[in-house]
Amino acid sequence: MATASMGGLHKLLQVGTKIVGVGRNYAAHAKELGNAVPKSPVLFLKPTSSYLENGGTIEIPHPLESLDHEVELAVVIGNKARDVPESSAMDYVAGYALALDMTAREIQASAKSAGLPWTVAKGQDTFTPISSVLSLSSVPDPDNLELWLKVDGDFRQKGSTKDMIFKIPYLISHISSFMTLFEGDVILTGTPQGVGPVKAGQKITAGITDIVDVHFNIEKRKRPGSS
Amino acid sequence: MATASMGGLHKLLQVGTKIVGVGRNYAAHAKELGNAVPKSPVLFLKPTSSYLENGGTIEIPHPLESLDHEVELAVVIGNKARDVPESSAMDYVAGYALALDMTAREIQASAKSAGLPWTVAKGQDTFTPISSVLSLSSVPDPDNLELWLKVDGDFRQKGSTKDMIFKIPYLISHISSFMTLFEGDVILTGTPQGVGPVKAGQKITAGITDIVDVHFNIEKRKRPGSS
Ligand SMILES: [Mg+2]
Ligand SMILES: [Mg+2]
Ligand SMILES: [Mg+2]
Repeated sequence: MATASMGGLHKLLQVGTKIVGVGRNYAAHAKELGNAVPKSPVLFLKPTSSYLENGGTIEIPHPLESLDHEVELAVVIGNKARDVPESSAMDYVAGYALALDMTAREIQASAKSAGLPWTVAKGQDTFTPISSVLSLSSVPDPDNLELWLKVDGDFRQKGSTKDMIFKIPYLISHISSFMTLFEGDVILTGTPQGVGPVKAGQKITAGITDIVDVHFNIEKRKRPGSS
Repeated sequence: MATASMGGLHKLLQVGTKIVGVGRNYAAHAKELGNAVPKSPVLFLKPTSSYLENGGTIEIPHPLESLDHEVELAVVIGNKARDVPESSAMDYVAGYALALDMTAREIQASAKSAGLPWTVAKGQDTFTPISSVLSLSSVPDPDNLELWLKVDGDFRQKGSTKDMIFKIPYLISHISSFMTLFEGDVILTGTPQGVGPVKAGQKITAGITDIVDVHFNIEKRKRPGSS
C-alpha cells in the first residue's frame, strides 16, 4: 500500500509524468454527446503542463469563446504499476484529487470527424485544474463519491462515482497492461452528465461532497504581443 | 542557448515529462498512408514510459503480429518554452536524438475511423526506441540530415529532414502556443516515406547518416502468467 506524508502528497503531482484520461465512463454522459457506451475504456493523454492549481485562472485560447467543463475524480498513482491485476490494483493508489478535464469541444469535434488526436482539444495549459491530493484515509469509499460542479453558483453537474462503467481497479489494470504507470501519474476517471460551456468572466466551483472543493476563474487567454 | 554537459544530456530524457509527436510532416509519407498533406501539424502525445534505450527489445503486444516502424528526428528541449516565436525557437533546443515512433497500425486505423485517440496505438511501453541525446555541436545542420532505417539489413526508409513540411522552429513555436514545453521534453518531427511492419525475430537498425546509429530487437510481448 502506498503511503505518503502530507508533504509527499503535495509533491506527487510534480513528480508525475502523465495524465491518462478516460472518456465516456458514465453512460449518461456518453449518451449526452451522442456516443455509444464503450466496450472498453476510451483512453487519451494530457500533459502535466496542463495542470492548474486551485484558485487559478482557466484560459480560453484564441479564437475560442468557451471551453467545456468535465468534473472528474482523479486517481493518483503511488508506485510503479505494470500488468497489475484488478485484485491488487488499489495497492498502487496513493491518493485522489478532484480535477476538471477542460475540453475545447469544437476542436475535439473537428479532430474526431477527421480521425485525428484530441491533443490540442484536451492538452493545452490550464486545461487540467486540480485540487490538492487527498490522502487515502480522507476518501474512505472512492466508488461512492458525489462529484458536483457549479458555474456562477448554479449546478451544472452532479453525479456519483458509483455510476462509473469501468471502476478504478479495472482502469488501473487495463491501463497498466499497455503502459507503465509511475509515482505521481494520474488517471482521470471520466465525467458524469451535464458537461457544457463556460465563458470568460464566469467562475467554476466544484468538489467532492463533504471532502474537498475548488474554485477557478475563466478568462480569455492573452496572446503575447496582444494588448 | 541551452547548454548541457554530456552527463546532463543523458539525464535530459529522464527529466522530461512529455513526447509530442508530429504526424504527416513529410508529404511522401502522408500520401503513402492515403492522407492529405496537412495545413497545420497533426499533434499527438506519447508518454515517456514508452522510451526504450538503444539495444533494447521492442515488444509487440498481444494479439498483434507486427508493429510499424517510423524513423524520426527527435528534438530535445533544453528549457521552458511557452509562446516562443520562430525567430528564437532554436534557442530552446538542447540536443537531438534518433527515435522510432512505433505504431500499432491496425489499432490506429480503428481509432481513426471511430474518431478516437491514438494513445493505445502509439503509447505502449517500448514504442519509442531512442538514441542517446546528441549535442548541438554534433548536429551542425538539423534541416539537412539523412534518416535511414533497415529491417534485417534491408533498407526500408531513407529520407532527409530537408523534406519536412513544418520545420523545427515552426514546430517549437506552434506547439509552445498550446502547451509549455519543459527541459527534457521531446518533439518527434515525423517520418519520411517507407513505413511498414516488423515482426518478432526481426532486427531494426536505424540512424542519422554519419552521426549516430541504433539497433533494436523485435519480440512478441510475454504477458504475465503466460508461459
Ligand atoms: Mg506525458
Ligand atoms: Mg473527461
Ligand atoms: Mg510518427
